[in-house]
Amino acid sequence: MKNPRITIIGVGLIGGSLGLALKAAGLDVTGVDSDRGSLDIAVRRGSVDRATTDLADGVAQADVVFLCTPVLQIPAVVARIAPHLREGAIITDVGSTKRFIGEKITRLLPRGVHYVGGHPMAGREKSGIAAADINLFRDKRYIFTPAAATPPAAVSLVAGLIRTTGARVSVMDISHHDDCAAVISHVPHVVAAGLVNLLGRYPGEEENIGALAGGGFCDTTRIASSNADMWADICLTNPDAITTGIEELQAMLDEVVAAIRRGDRAAVHAFFAAAKARRDNIIASL
Amino acid sequence: MKNPRITIIGVGLIGGSLGLALKAAGLDVTGVDSDRGSLDIAVRRGSVDRATTDLADGVAQADVVFLCTPVLQIPAVVARIAPHLREGAIITDVGSTKRFIGEKITRLLPRGVHYVGGHPMAGREKSGIAAADINLFRDKRYIFTPAAATPPAAVSLVAGLIRTTGARVSVMDISHHDDCAAVISHVPHVVAAGLVNLLGRYPGEEENIGALAGGGFCDTTRIASSNADMWADICLTNPDAITTGIEELQAMLDEVVAAIRRGDRAAVHAFFAAAKARRDNIIASL
Repeated sequence: MKNPRITIIGVGLIGGSLGLALKAAGLDVTGVDSDRGSLDIAVRRGSVDRATTDLADGVAQADVVFLCTPVLQIPAVVARIAPHLREGAIITDVGSTKRFIGEKITRLLPRGVHYVGGHPMAGREKSGIAAADINLFRDKRYIFTPAAATPPAAVSLVAGLIRTTGARVSVMDISHHDDCAAVISHVPHVVAAGLVNLLGRYPGEEENIGALAGGGFCDTTRIASSNADMWADICLTNPDAITTGIEELQAMLDEVVAAIRRGDRAAVHAFFAAAKARRDNIIASL
Repeated sequence: MKNPRITIIGVGLIGGSLGLALKAAGLDVTGVDSDRGSLDIAVRRGSVDRATTDLADGVAQADVVFLCTPVLQIPAVVARIAPHLREGAIITDVGSTKRFIGEKITRLLPRGVHYVGGHPMAGREKSGIAAADINLFRDKRYIFTPAAATPPAAVSLVAGLIRTTGARVSVMDISHHDDCAAVISHVPHVVAAGLVNLLGRYPGEEENIGALAGGGFCDTTRIASSNADMWADICLTNPDAITTGIEELQAMLDEVVAAIRRGDRAAVHAFFAAAKARRDNIIASL
């Protein structure tokens, strides 16, 4: 399909950045959002050609709809737009968890409309249309998780659109995606937030804690400054993999605590040395 | 005391960087290390004026001795140099934990020699003299933890030397230091290493994990690439505060896991929102 018409629902950081990049590639982009203020900024910044708060109107002409709302809002949005989608339209989303949303969307879509799950690896702590950036996806991974029944042509079309943003496209099995995302991204987010909340157990020590906060703390907890709504949704839509991962981490911490208590330097050293070797390998392979 | 003679024992990243900065301030610096190769590099790079592998020789003329070896080696080094120190000499160290080492050193020092505990907030993942940098301490905090019996003149002398490196000097009670350092630095290090080791539970998923590793993972686990020897020593010299902190973190994670399992979005959201507010405050105050 040449120059498919695009609708982006949710013009925040991701939706707004996507609009900037797709419009720069010459595509026609309609923006839909419940927040009129965000839509005004999206039009002014050139993220979208036209804007509406009406979901039915917004998707009526669309060949490809990008769902860029918070994950837990997606099922309600899809239920609302389903009767208004054109035959042959393609729906894709940008959520960080794919199993939950894939199951919901697939049940809601009319015949002749296809869903391709997507996940751009392009978060940042800031959110909202004001933080949108035409280069947000450049050189980042963008993962698609098509179901077995998804037509390859639908995947190709959406992947081709995303390549215009400068992202590197890959395809992954949906279950692998959620299990791996839990340990590489979701569990670290929960733990980073926990590390910050731990400081709340030391009232009156703010000054000393501040004096001892080095670059390590800033980096380790950077993701704890992320959007709380987005991360609550991620936890609730990938609960099994995330809670299992946290419990596995806790079991490892139990072992380290026991090793420290018995003064077992060899075991504590092995723990740190294994982490260093594994991380250095991962970083070298990126 | 004008232009005190300095001896640095252990010319690695910290000792070597300290030598570069103190020599630039016009001071006379002797370097001692058990590794001849490190000493040669230290002389060649201008970190020290002269070098020796002999501890007794190295400290005989020193007014101020900086102990920059790994923490667990310090007691043995102090026992070796104690008989050779001049009356009035001052000993200081650069370890990340202060209670353990302070107790050991105080017991070993001869009358008329004073100890001032120090902790530069200037780590990095690289170690060794090759990574030494004259600006390593610039604009970083450098914390001293003098005991009640330490003469103020000894603290002033060492603090004055450290100010020449560009560091910002503060003074902290030794117990507060170790408790606060545990929650702001030591526990995050252990947990970051745990997050990396968790990935080892998913054999065969290296490629998918790599594809999903974004900037969040790189930042959160950056400190997991630190020196394993140094971190094993830190854990073994601040065991109570670190294990207590890990267990408090685990209790918080238990609560989040329970909230995720029962689908309690409000509780999960509150957890992330509290962390974001607290971290944003800490970062703003740095």
